[in-house]
This record gives sequence, structure tokens and C-alpha cells, in this order.
Amino acid sequence: MKFNKNDTIVALATAHGSSAIAIIRLSGNDAINIAEKNFYSKSKSNSLKKLTDVKSYTLCFGEYKLNDTIIDEVLVSVFKAPNSYTGEHGVEVSCHGSPFIIQKLIELFLSNGARMANNGEFTMRAFLNGKLDLSQAEAVADLIASNSAVSHQVAMQQMRGGFSSKIKLLRDNLINFASLIELELDFSEEDVEFANRTDLKKLIDSITTLIQKLINSFEVGNVIKNGIPVAIVGKPNAGKSTLLNVLLDDDRAIVSEIPGTTRDTIEDEMIIEGVMFRFIDTAGIRTTTDIIEQIGVNKAFEVIKKSAIVIYLFDGHEISSGDLKLELELLQPHIGNSQLVIVANKIDVEGEDTLQKEFVEYPEMIFISAKELKNINHLKEKLVSLFDTRTVEVTDTIVTNARHVNSLIRANEALQKVKQGLDENIVGDLLALDIRYALQELGAITGEVHVDDLLESIFTKFCIGK
Amino acid sequence: MKFNKNDTIVALATAHGSSAIAIIRLSGNDAINIAEKNFYSKSKSNSLKKLTDVKSYTLCFGEYKLNDTIIDEVLVSVFKAPNSYTGEHGVEVSCHGSPFIIQKLIELFLSNGARMANNGEFTMRAFLNGKLDLSQAEAVADLIASNSAVSHQVAMQQMRGGFSSKIKLLRDNLINFASLIELELDFSEEDVEFANRTDLKKLIDSITTLIQKLINSFEVGNVIKNGIPVAIVGKPNAGKSTLLNVLLDDDRAIVSEIPGTTRDTIEDEMIIEGVMFRFIDTAGIRTTTDIIEQIGVNKAFEVIKKSAIVIYLFDGHEISSGDLKLELELLQPHIGNSQLVIVANKIDVEGEDTLQKEFVEYPEMIFISAKELKNINHLKEKLVSLFDTRTVEVTDTIVTNARHVNSLIRANEALQKVKQGLDENIVGDLLALDIRYALQELGAITGEVHVDDLLESIFTKFCIGK
Repeated sequence: MKFNKNDTIVALATAHGSSAIAIIRLSGNDAINIAEKNFYSKSKSNSLKKLTDVKSYTLCFGEYKLNDTIIDEVLVSVFKAPNSYTGEHGVEVSCHGSPFIIQKLIELFLSNGARMANNGEFTMRAFLNGKLDLSQAEAVADLIASNSAVSHQVAMQQMRGGFSSKIKLLRDNLINFASLIELELDFSEEDVEFANRTDLKKLIDSITTLIQKLINSFEVGNVIKNGIPVAIVGKPNAGKSTLLNVLLDDDRAIVSEIPGTTRDTIEDEMIIEGVMFRFIDTAGIRTTTDIIEQIGVNKAFEVIKKSAIVIYLFDGHEISSGDLKLELELLQPHIGNSQLVIVANKIDVEGEDTLQKEFVEYPEMIFISAKELKNINHLKEKLVSLFDTRTVEVTDTIVTNARHVNSLIRANEALQKVKQGLDENIVGDLLALDIRYALQELGAITGEVHVDDLLESIFTKFCIGK
Repeated sequence: MKFNKNDTIVALATAHGSSAIAIIRLSGNDAINIAEKNFYSKSKSNSLKKLTDVKSYTLCFGEYKLNDTIIDEVLVSVFKAPNSYTGEHGVEVSCHGSPFIIQKLIELFLSNGARMANNGEFTMRAFLNGKLDLSQAEAVADLIASNSAVSHQVAMQQMRGGFSSKIKLLRDNLINFASLIELELDFSEEDVEFANRTDLKKLIDSITTLIQKLINSFEVGNVIKNGIPVAIVGKPNAGKSTLLNVLLDDDRAIVSEIPGTTRDTIEDEMIIEGVMFRFIDTAGIRTTTDIIEQIGVNKAFEVIKKSAIVIYLFDGHEISSGDLKLELELLQPHIGNSQLVIVANKIDVEGEDTLQKEFVEYPEMIFISAKELKNINHLKEKLVSLFDTRTVEVTDTIVTNARHVNSLIRANEALQKVKQGLDENIVGDLLALDIRYALQELGAITGEVHVDDLLESIFTKFCIGK
């Protein structure tokens, strides 16, 4: 079996690279014994001389030495089972953040009996030892990956069991329902109806309503995890690129105040008031319009289709109210469920008042100057407010995990069959089968029901050392 | 003043990037008080409820919360002055390795009264508080940057005071010498010669011999820090690139066994048995030879001049013993102090025995097949042995720091003047001046004598958080 729980595992738990400090983590039955080998305490206190003797949650200063060669001076944290992250004996060795030293220390622990940990194996052990359920364990990875206040809060809530308790409630309700059905089943020959059919239908309705609400929350959850897709569309001279740069640069300046938080690889994302927006670049569209206009337009429509918010940007100086009306009419059929934000640019040229008079029929219109950074905050507030209306229940449980939503969808399908069965008065045996299936799907979310393959596919997405 | 010792400083101490664990470090009078604010202990033990109450070297589990929003669940290590790295109160907060969480926690500590640490400021405080001398502090940075067994050992020895004790010995000898001279000075009018001139000369000779030895060790020290420069030269068809790839790829495979140790940016370095070799690329030379041969040859000669070792690689299948002799005669004047290693390639074509007979006059010659990876280990052993002969005293103190060697050179110059003065029988006053200058230079190495500018220039080269 790939995941042998009896092994003691080791991994670097901090990020790679040279740094002041690095942490090497051990977990397993032999973690403290392995860490004790080649360790020489430099503590003045006798009670801190041996790692195997110290109290849990104690730090020991000392050095690792191999054949008279000092590998490093270290601080060792000792955690005794079951009061550790994994629920097993655990050790965290804090050493100098030199890749060479890290390699030598890990080699030492490997030769003293540990093996390299698989991705997420520490957290998987925490799950297998009952420290976390599966959805909580998955939230740990989400928490580490979180890059906005909202995604951070959702992951934190899930890690602390918010989502799990919702699922537990659903399961309890469903078990209650199943027991009523099965009771009826036991006495079916006596033709006794313990469960009032109307009450049963009411109960299944309330359960499916809850599940549906969770499924619906995934739309928001997905947006939280991956950002709200926003398309900026408009004619070439409208100032799209300038606006995009203004929005992004501004954001970058904020996030890079503290060294190392700049996310170089994220090109077109920005976080406003803790909400992540992801801009779908329409820059490529412009160039193709010169060749075959229709291709460009089609591409723009595709972008719009993928967006939750469409910013229609136009040059307020060039387009009249009548022109705008025509353009918006052409755009309207493609917008679908997306939210439209109409933005008049270049108030530096014409003046805000003049434009407000011209476009008096559009009370929601935002007037900006991308060039002179005027009213950019209005636009940002508007974007954030659109997110708020889409997520009235942001404090509620939000599903962000595709695996969870798939389980919920399958549970829901099974319950729809149960409902149909109730309507058609089919026998309890068949109802019970679908109920059991729904229970199993809900159990898979929190890991009450699980298979090794599932665990492997979940935890391999984790980083090493977690 | 830029370095205010009364502030409490904060910085991320682990490498940047998403990871299982990150460490945020605080040091200063208020470190524990600042860490206590917004901290909520989740320990079952009452004695671990408040960071301000816990014993030194204790870990506390809890969470940081700001207005009901949990920033993260953390493990906090508490170190009380003077038993900490810096000698001040210290706190290390172990949080989830999410850049977002790191940013939020640092912001929290800043708003609670800490300020961002400058590069190396933790280690500088350790120095200012007498935990380390200056050369030991500098060795901390070298230790983190070390990437080979030898550079690691030299930095470790220096960090643990090996070099400092040598300098102390020199200073003690010099002070002893100075006191003899000054005693003579005090009684100069009585024409008493307390110090036997011959003994004085012997003492200064032994001191300067020691200093000279340290200065000489810098040649090796520099090589340890930056790698031993090796040029592979030879005709285009000799197989230089193949050999280089074989040497480098082989090494890369070894270092990348443990994730994260692969050094992508290092293109032409390899570590053999703990010794770093740095190849000076001669690939560029080949292309220019086609145009104006002389430019190419000149460039090759420049490369050779910079190298400690020159590998002359030739195609054993194509070149006769007589040809080789001519070629080596052309090469010889340019080799200077470099060590020459003659390597016959392509034994896969001709056979090792045939070639050994052909080149019987060259007992040191190495016969390889770069293509079929034959005898590559012989070549590696040869390279390592050349390093060994250059550093018979590798266990001795080795100077790796340019600042230190410059101080030693200046001290040596001053002592040469003293020596000259002794020979010319000049008055003690003038001798004392030069002795004092030499003492000052030696004191600058360990920081017994220092100026703020020096500290700034040393510690700004450190990473943040160390």
C-alpha cells in the first residue's frame, strides 16, 4: 500500500530557496527517536538534554553532527501523540535555510529510518487519525493557496468545520428520514403507515432545498477561488488597456508593500477590498478586427459569455447618447446572465458634467478618466458591490471544491428519485437504496466513506511537507 | 540612526512562496507583548494561556484574530532575553505558508508596534548584544549560502569562532609585543633595553608568518566560496561540450534527488565530493575561430589565465603523440600557475590500450570516452586530488571573506613597517603607532573595533529575516 501509516515520514515544510530559517518536519511512531539520533543538545538545562525525555511543546537547542562534522545548529520542537497536527509523534527541526544543509539533514533522517513524505501526507495522516475530516483537510490546501480576504475566510471556515457541520446536519436529517421509511418497511405486511407521506415529502423537500442551496453556492465559491471573470469590451480607442493597467498597477503597488507578496505570474488579476477579479484579456481581439472584423467580434462575444461582469467602456468624447444606444442594443443579446457596467471614459477631455447631461438616461453609468485616474474608485466600488449582490449569503457556507459539488449533485439526483418514488408510491426497499446512495455521497465529502484512490487523488495536489 | 536597537523588529524568516509552514520572526523589548496582542491560546494547559506568562523555549498553540476574523491558527515559540538568537526577547510565529496570511500577520504585528526588520538586522543585534563577533555573524550569511561540503564546513567553523580565535591569538601576540616596546619607551631615557631586539624580531616574524598564512589561505578560500575555475580547452572536434554535459548532468542528477535542491540558475558548476568546480565556458570561442582565428585563440588564452585547472582535451583517435607534443608546446607559455590535465577522448573508437601505448610518455594522461561515459570517474578523482594538493591545510583556518583579507593585508603592511623600524632602530613611539594600526585592523575583523557604516555594508548583504 502506498500510504503506510507505520512509517515515519520526513519533508521540508517551508518554501524552497535560501532563507534565514527552514523547517524540516517528521511525523510517525519513531519521529522523536529518529530526531534524537546524531542530535547533541546544547541546552544548559538538564531536562532538555534528550529529545526523547522532553515535554511536549518544548524547544531544544542543539546541533546535528555526523562523524565529528557539524551539519547545523538547530532548534527542535517536539510534539507528542496525540497532541500534534498529525495526531502522531512529531518533530520540527528549525535549521539555517541553506539548501545544502536542508539536503544533508534530510539525508541524515532518511538514513536514520525515516522515508520521504508524499505530497499532503502529513495532513492525510491528520485525517486518518481523526484530527480533521476530509473536507477540513482539503481546506488546509485551499487556505495555503488563498490570496484574497474572501478566499481566505471561506477556506478558514471550512478548515474549522463550518462546511462539515452543514453536511452532518444534512446526513442527520436524511438518516432520520431513512429510519422512518425503514420502519415502515419492517411493518409493511401489517399495512401500517408510520410515516405520514405528506410529512415525508416535506422532509425530503427541505433536505433537497438545503443541498440545492449548497450546489448553487458553488457558482460563488468558484468565483472566490478563481476570481470573478470580468471582460472589458469596447472600441479600440475607448482606452481599455489604459484602464486595465490603471486597475492592475494600482493593485500591484498595494500588494507589493511587503516584500515577497508580489505575485509575478498573475498577470490579469486584482484584489479589491478582499475580492479577487480576473480580467479576461480582450487585447488580442483588437488586432484581428483589422483583418476580418467578424472573427474579432465573435471572439469578443466568447469572452463576454465567460464573464460574470462586462465593462462596456467607451470614449464619452466621441460617442453620442444615440450611438451608445445602438451599440448597447447590438451587445445586449450576448450578455446573457453577465452584469453590465457602462463606463464613459475621457472625462478629462469633455468634463464630467457635460457627459452626465448627455447620458442622463443611464443613471448607473460611471464617468472616469483612465488617463488622469479620475473616479477609478467609483468603478472599483461598483465591481465590489456587484459581487456583494451576487453573494448575499457570503457568511453562509460556500462550496468551493469541485469534488464536493459533484457529490452534492449526485446526492441530489438520488433524492430526486426518492421524491419521485414517494409521489408514485413505490415500495420502501427501492427508496432505501437511493437514500443509501445519497448518504454515501454526502459521507464522501467529509470522508466518513472513503477509498484509497480518492485519498490519493486529493492529497497528491498538496504541497510536500503539509 | 538607521539601526535603532530599541525597536521591535519583524520579518518573514522562511523563503517566499506557498508552503506548508512559514515562520514570522520578532525580536526586541516588546516582541512578546506585541505577539500577545490579538493572540488567543487554544491550549488546554492554563500555563500556556498567555505568551507573556510562558517559560522560555515553549511552544503555544492558538490563533490570531482581528475583529472576529481569524487570520490563522499558529504555533508560537517564545524566547526570553538573553537566551535567544539576538539576545533580546524573541518570538517565532509558525503559520500556514500562504503569502496572504503572511502579509496579514506581518501587518498585524506592524500595527501592534513592530517595524519591518532591515536585512540581517536579527544577526546584527546578535552581534551588538555580544552573542557573536563580527566574523561569526558574517559566517551566518556564508553558511546559508553554502552549497558544497567544503564551503559549508569553512562557514560552520568560522561561525563557531574558529577564525575569531586565530585573530585573537594574533592580537594577543601583538599586544604582548607592543607592551615590550612600550615598556622600553617608558624607560627610554635610562637607555635600558628590556626587550632583546633579536627576540622582538623573532616575535614579529612569527606574527607576520601567521598573518601571511591567513592571507595566502584566501586563494583557497575564494575558490571554496566561488568554485575552482576550470577551463576545458581543445580543438572543436575534441568533444568538449559532450564532456561538459556529462560532468554537469551527472552532478545534477545527484543534487536533484531531493526536491528543491536543483539549482536552475547555476549552469556551469558542479560539486564533486563536496568540492565546487566552476567551468569557464569556452563554447563561445569556437564560433569566432572561423572568422579570425587569432581572436578565438586570444580568448582561449584569457580563459586559461583565469583558471586554476586547465583540462586539455583531444581526440586520441586523430592526434598522434608527436602532434600532441607540438600543441602542448604552443599551449604551455599561457598556462602559468594553472594545473594542466591532459585528457585523451574517444577511447570508444580506438581502445584504451592502443592509446596508452601511443601516449606512453604522458603517465598522468587520463583516457576517457565522454560519449560512452568511460573513465569519467578517473577525471573527477583527478580534479578533486588537484584541489587537495592545493589545500593541504584545509582543516586549518581559511579566509573566505574579502573584507577580512583586506584587513589582514593592511595589518601585515603595518607590521612590515614595524619590522623595518626595528632593523633601522627607529624610536619606539613610531613603532607603537604602526602596531596600534595593525591591532585596529585585526580588531575590525571580529568587530572589536567597528563603525556603523561598516555594519550597514556588512548586514545589508544578508537576507531579510536573518
